[in-house]
Amino acid sequence: MVGAHRFESLALSYNLTSMTNLSIAIHGGAGTILKKSMTPEKEAAYNVALQAALDSGYVALKRGATAIDAVEKSVSALEDSHLFNAGKGSVFTADGTHEMDASIMDGSNLNAGAVSLISGVKNPVQLSRLVMEKSDHVFLAGDGALKFAEQMKCEFKDSAYFYDEFRYNQWQEVKGTDQFQLDHSISKEHKFGTVGAVALDQFGNIAAATSTGGMTNKKFGRVGDSPMVGAGNYANNETCAVSCTGSGEFFIRAVVAYDVSCLMEYKGMSLKDACSKVVQDRLVKIGGDGGLIAVDAQGNICLEYNTEGMYRGQRNNQGINEVAIYK
Amino acid sequence: MVGAHRFESLALSYNLTSMTNLSIAIHGGAGTILKKSMTPEKEAAYNVALQAALDSGYVALKRGATAIDAVEKSVSALEDSHLFNAGKGSVFTADGTHEMDASIMDGSNLNAGAVSLISGVKNPVQLSRLVMEKSDHVFLAGDGALKFAEQMKCEFKDSAYFYDEFRYNQWQEVKGTDQFQLDHSISKEHKFGTVGAVALDQFGNIAAATSTGGMTNKKFGRVGDSPMVGAGNYANNETCAVSCTGSGEFFIRAVVAYDVSCLMEYKGMSLKDACSKVVQDRLVKIGGDGGLIAVDAQGNICLEYNTEGMYRGQRNNQGINEVAIYK
Repeated sequence: MVGAHRFESLALSYNLTSMTNLSIAIHGGAGTILKKSMTPEKEAAYNVALQAALDSGYVALKRGATAIDAVEKSVSALEDSHLFNAGKGSVFTADGTHEMDASIMDGSNLNAGAVSLISGVKNPVQLSRLVMEKSDHVFLAGDGALKFAEQMKCEFKDSAYFYDEFRYNQWQEVKGTDQFQLDHSISKEHKFGTVGAVALDQFGNIAAATSTGGMTNKKFGRVGDSPMVGAGNYANNETCAVSCTGSGEFFIRAVVAYDVSCLMEYKGMSLKDACSKVVQDRLVKIGGDGGLIAVDAQGNICLEYNTEGMYRGQRNNQGINEVAIYK
Repeated sequence: MVGAHRFESLALSYNLTSMTNLSIAIHGGAGTILKKSMTPEKEAAYNVALQAALDSGYVALKRGATAIDAVEKSVSALEDSHLFNAGKGSVFTADGTHEMDASIMDGSNLNAGAVSLISGVKNPVQLSRLVMEKSDHVFLAGDGALKFAEQMKCEFKDSAYFYDEFRYNQWQEVKGTDQFQLDHSISKEHKFGTVGAVALDQFGNIAAATSTGGMTNKKFGRVGDSPMVGAGNYANNETCAVSCTGSGEFFIRAVVAYDVSCLMEYKGMSLKDACSKVVQDRLVKIGGDGGLIAVDAQGNICLEYNTEGMYRGQRNNQGINEVAIYK
């Protein structure tokens, strides 16, 4: 009986090992990203930043971190880069300030946290996690959210930290006008500046996180899809974890992230088919452009977009490890 | 042939008449509403206010108004009553102010508008409609939303308008504490103070609107489900129009309003079965309590809640015309 017991233990151990797929995907925004408007240096810088953000979450997963920890790490890394429209690289509002949004969701228990219209916080995604874990609420915004951040002793940075010459010049182009997005120009890429991550950990749990610096020259305290559970971010172990980037208003109206989940849960679609249906069909029908990244509890990854390009990366423990920008 | 043609026209005319169902439903919040804690006078006042709000939308529908007009009218009437936690009757925040949220959605084109954390605006639902129709955005919050309201020449009221002795005393009970909701007390009813309306018009279009004054003693710029498309409010001609009321954080995490729509669209459920599944099963599983009202493009109405009561009313052109409070 001792031998039989030992055999069972070995089998269990083997199953656990084979079950422990690890997957992570990230994005740094989607839009009109054309190779001809890139320099080799700029492209290399983007690839390095994407790989570093991807690795920070993946290495954490390999060391036993939860999916929530991994997506927080990867998104924090993207927020700390001046290249992406989130955290340090946030664009300027019409008032010359920075208003950032972020959210996070844990697929194992459907817990979620979100913040909107916050200024000065170094890592909005970390604040959204504190909202999830340390407040009675899901979604805090504006001055109230900043008061909460102070109580939580979040790291704040002054305006010099968020200043970037490129972003400032972007703002100067449209300052004083009603323009908040530059259609039909190469600057359109910045319209969709959002970062995000989705991950599967060794415990079989999935999670999603999203962060954005909003739109250049945006006014009126506009809230996009990024901090909205179900629209720009969603995670549920039963289906998928999703982080979106695109023309936020359309993503809100189409409840994009939860739509992917519902197509899987209610129609029995695969992750790939559900993502394709939402991004290439349902979203297009109402005029929305952008993309999303998604992972399911089996470790499948999907990077879907209907734009020219999407800053993106994916890595798993089955040999995939890549970053990309164009189609 | 003239006779045959005339017959066809009559048939068409008959079909059109039979097709033009008109339906409207409203709610004034769900929660622990016990008959024993009501006076006959208070109960009568609630019933009168509910009937007046119901009628204002219904009469508009009969006169040819759109569903969007009807839900805006009914919700405005509820906002103008001191009895419900929205508009004039909004509860006090921890700072002794009023922070209101509202949203509206047009099922014919999936257009939506929402506002959050606004003060002084007489009818937040009307501001949410202006966001939908006059801005490039879906969701505006805080000071920015107020600037937009000023540009739109919205009607503002001073703090005296929003002052209510009963609400003030509610606040005094918990002021200076971290309590923002009073579980296990008769005041729990006010935790769920939200109003809403859903309607079907003669054109076959449906719409939904929701408005709230938030939670007594709420802090940190908490945003609930009411202004969130897909969570507290949603409308789509293909499925249903939904307005929710309840423990907002759970409604956000469960993406309640869009979940009802997805069960109809992807699982082929009836309005009644979809509402029941979400409110009595899926929401309960994560600990959420509250309710919702819903209508579909055929004019079916569903008033579903898992609490002791819900202030509610429904009226159609098939003879239904009723308001109710308890189970």
